[in-house]
Amino acid sequence: MEVLLMNEDTIAAVATGMGGAGIGIIRISGNKAIEIGNRLFVNPKGRTLDAAESHQLLYGRIIDPIAKKDIDEVLISKMKAPHSYTAEDVVEINCHGGIVPMRKILKLVIESGARLAEPGEFTKRAFLNGRLDLAQAEAVMDIINAKTEKSLEYSVAQLEGRLSEKLEELDQVLIDILSHMEVNIDYPEYDIEDITFQFIDDEIKNLIKKIEDILAVAETGKIYREGITTAILGEPNVGKSSLLNTLLMENKAIVTDVPGTTRDTIEEYINIEGIPFKMIDTAGIRETDNVVEKIGVEKSKALLNQTTLVIFMRDISKEMSDAEKEIMALLKNRKTIYIANKTDVIEGKEGEIPDPWIPMSLIEESGIEVLKNKMIEMVYEGNVSQEADYLITNTRQIQLLEKTKGSLENAVLTMNSQMPIELVSIDVMEALESLRGITGKTVGIDIINQIFKNFCIGK
Amino acid sequence: MEVLLMNEDTIAAVATGMGGAGIGIIRISGNKAIEIGNRLFVNPKGRTLDAAESHQLLYGRIIDPIAKKDIDEVLISKMKAPHSYTAEDVVEINCHGGIVPMRKILKLVIESGARLAEPGEFTKRAFLNGRLDLAQAEAVMDIINAKTEKSLEYSVAQLEGRLSEKLEELDQVLIDILSHMEVNIDYPEYDIEDITFQFIDDEIKNLIKKIEDILAVAETGKIYREGITTAILGEPNVGKSSLLNTLLMENKAIVTDVPGTTRDTIEEYINIEGIPFKMIDTAGIRETDNVVEKIGVEKSKALLNQTTLVIFMRDISKEMSDAEKEIMALLKNRKTIYIANKTDVIEGKEGEIPDPWIPMSLIEESGIEVLKNKMIEMVYEGNVSQEADYLITNTRQIQLLEKTKGSLENAVLTMNSQMPIELVSIDVMEALESLRGITGKTVGIDIINQIFKNFCIGK
Repeated sequence: MEVLLMNEDTIAAVATGMGGAGIGIIRISGNKAIEIGNRLFVNPKGRTLDAAESHQLLYGRIIDPIAKKDIDEVLISKMKAPHSYTAEDVVEINCHGGIVPMRKILKLVIESGARLAEPGEFTKRAFLNGRLDLAQAEAVMDIINAKTEKSLEYSVAQLEGRLSEKLEELDQVLIDILSHMEVNIDYPEYDIEDITFQFIDDEIKNLIKKIEDILAVAETGKIYREGITTAILGEPNVGKSSLLNTLLMENKAIVTDVPGTTRDTIEEYINIEGIPFKMIDTAGIRETDNVVEKIGVEKSKALLNQTTLVIFMRDISKEMSDAEKEIMALLKNRKTIYIANKTDVIEGKEGEIPDPWIPMSLIEESGIEVLKNKMIEMVYEGNVSQEADYLITNTRQIQLLEKTKGSLENAVLTMNSQMPIELVSIDVMEALESLRGITGKTVGIDIINQIFKNFCIGK
Repeated sequence: MEVLLMNEDTIAAVATGMGGAGIGIIRISGNKAIEIGNRLFVNPKGRTLDAAESHQLLYGRIIDPIAKKDIDEVLISKMKAPHSYTAEDVVEINCHGGIVPMRKILKLVIESGARLAEPGEFTKRAFLNGRLDLAQAEAVMDIINAKTEKSLEYSVAQLEGRLSEKLEELDQVLIDILSHMEVNIDYPEYDIEDITFQFIDDEIKNLIKKIEDILAVAETGKIYREGITTAILGEPNVGKSSLLNTLLMENKAIVTDVPGTTRDTIEEYINIEGIPFKMIDTAGIRETDNVVEKIGVEKSKALLNQTTLVIFMRDISKEMSDAEKEIMALLKNRKTIYIANKTDVIEGKEGEIPDPWIPMSLIEESGIEVLKNKMIEMVYEGNVSQEADYLITNTRQIQLLEKTKGSLENAVLTMNSQMPIELVSIDVMEALESLRGITGKTVGIDIINQIFKNFCIGK
């Protein structure tokens, strides 16, 4: 691994959430980290960060060395390179988790010679310094943004390198194939071409099969990572926002069992059996019930393009309107769950509701469990697996693996067209390059920047 | 110090902010903390929390010991009693700062035998275990909620015990007075009463003077801690919300120079020379400009009762309306700054604007600095001092100190009425009790509970 940025400069950021909390951490990484920590830290017994052991927490104060003022009571630690998150010298200052003390300490750190870290820059350094590969680095952000415990589980497996191990297996096979080819290219006089061809053909087809197996469960990884985008559609006043609120409230109760979590975006997600459903708040569905009216058929189409699952809801006590028929036509070839709401109004006639409509009464709180089971069923129809622990999780990874597969298919075609083995090897090389893109073995700096800029600050 | 709750049970909470951040900390305190940490932590080299040194950071994983699954990559540390925040055994787990990993680890900690900490319970234990006095404990929350660097400075001084030291001085004088009295009560036959009386009278009067000095700057502490509540009043369309936004935007630019801070309540504060002005968002002043119209004179009165400073604004290009005259009558004996807005409309005639009106044009961005200087001037008129570093900061402390002073004044009165010295000593005892209430030397458990319930979870 080429070390591109190591110790070029020293970066710093607040690494914890910015709410008014008990503890906040300022993280510093780079060759000046310890020097900066030393400058700002005073221990009552005169101990210094310099003299301390690596990974030792020291108690003391952060001072403003120019104004000669105490800023906060802290615990401080240094983690000597390479035994740190970034594999560089790292200093972490655990101060009080208020905005003003965190800001002030960060300001002092920057005035002492660090610069503000860019989003994801700590993890980027961990990657550039060879401590994490790219798939592992991506897993870090997936852990932080995990929507459910199941999502967390897959991301942790990826951070621990399970996906990377699986890809390394494929990598080895490709290297093996390439070396067989090389023998053939370098020593054509041996005339082992036929045997080699057979071997390579078998190996490549095997590999394609393995990649297809991974891709078959890739959807699962993506679902747990990103959630199933779900919209509730229907005419005004059929009960859409009541349903959305019912689903969100249940979830909120779970989310907020730990105080302080209410305002987070995780609230938009409903967790059903570990699967995160991302509920689209269609143009303020919570404020107004006039979504269909407002958005019209054209906009419904646009909305449907970003939606994986649709819950279509109507008032069963009324005749079906023209607008409803129009929307339903749009939904024909989409994953749709049909809800017949307000069965409380037609009491006694619930039995007459035809499939696939799910009878529901939000007032009587009936039909919601049936809906949730149906939502899960719809997801599993999409071949979701809960087995593999080396799941591909994001679009970048899927695209690279598909590209790998495409190159291997080209290799088979090239071989079958009796082309020289040199041309086949180009396809295989391409396959290897795409595969390695997933873990970053050969990725260009622009792709790396692209990946890390989606990180949060302080990581 | 009586130890009321030490090690009775083990508590746990998320101690960092709950946003999606790089690092989150789960804090555990109590006699089972290390046992719980051991149960959930696995180190690749087989190191355990048990065997580790105090204050040593260990790298490893948190596992679900029943489901046998990896939950997150962490750094963990133990801090052995009494060398910890609570003076009990403390374990801190530094995991990834996502809601799901933090929640899951907290859940495992609780399933392993801890219970969820109440707000402020860690600091309460620090107090009950004698590591902090009550004034220091209150300072912890003031640090976290500090509005400006100046507020932080005073709170840190209080945490470091400067106020407590000052109070200890007074405490010593009271003890001294009481022992002199006791000599007189125990040995009345010595007839030293006159000399004692003179000495006690002098000492008490000295003490009252010292307390008055502290109370004289108490307002300063309160202002830096709580801010100056400020409202902008005026008729519709005079420019109130533009002014509020201008002031808040400037502040926001400062607040948000550290990413991730935008949503915090600190945004309601304007920081002028370190003094936090809490801007009242009068019934949605940001959405509508019709505040006076909506709230009417009666409600204006109610609003004014919670407001320390009023900025009254009118459109200088228009005649003064009856409503304006009515509001101005209300403001007569209040701290009010008068703004004559829209000087751009009356160009050339700005010189005709009489005192105390401050000419302003929000369109031309003029007059804002004059306003800010005036706001500061108004605060300093209230005898704000920036000198003392032992500032009393909250109402509880002020009331107790005033009570102390009251008891001492009673003691002087009692003495001057030639009452027996036993009765004087009762007043002095009362003074001592009130004084000690500030640092908690003798405070009842109900007051303690009252104080700590305003803390945040995890502290």
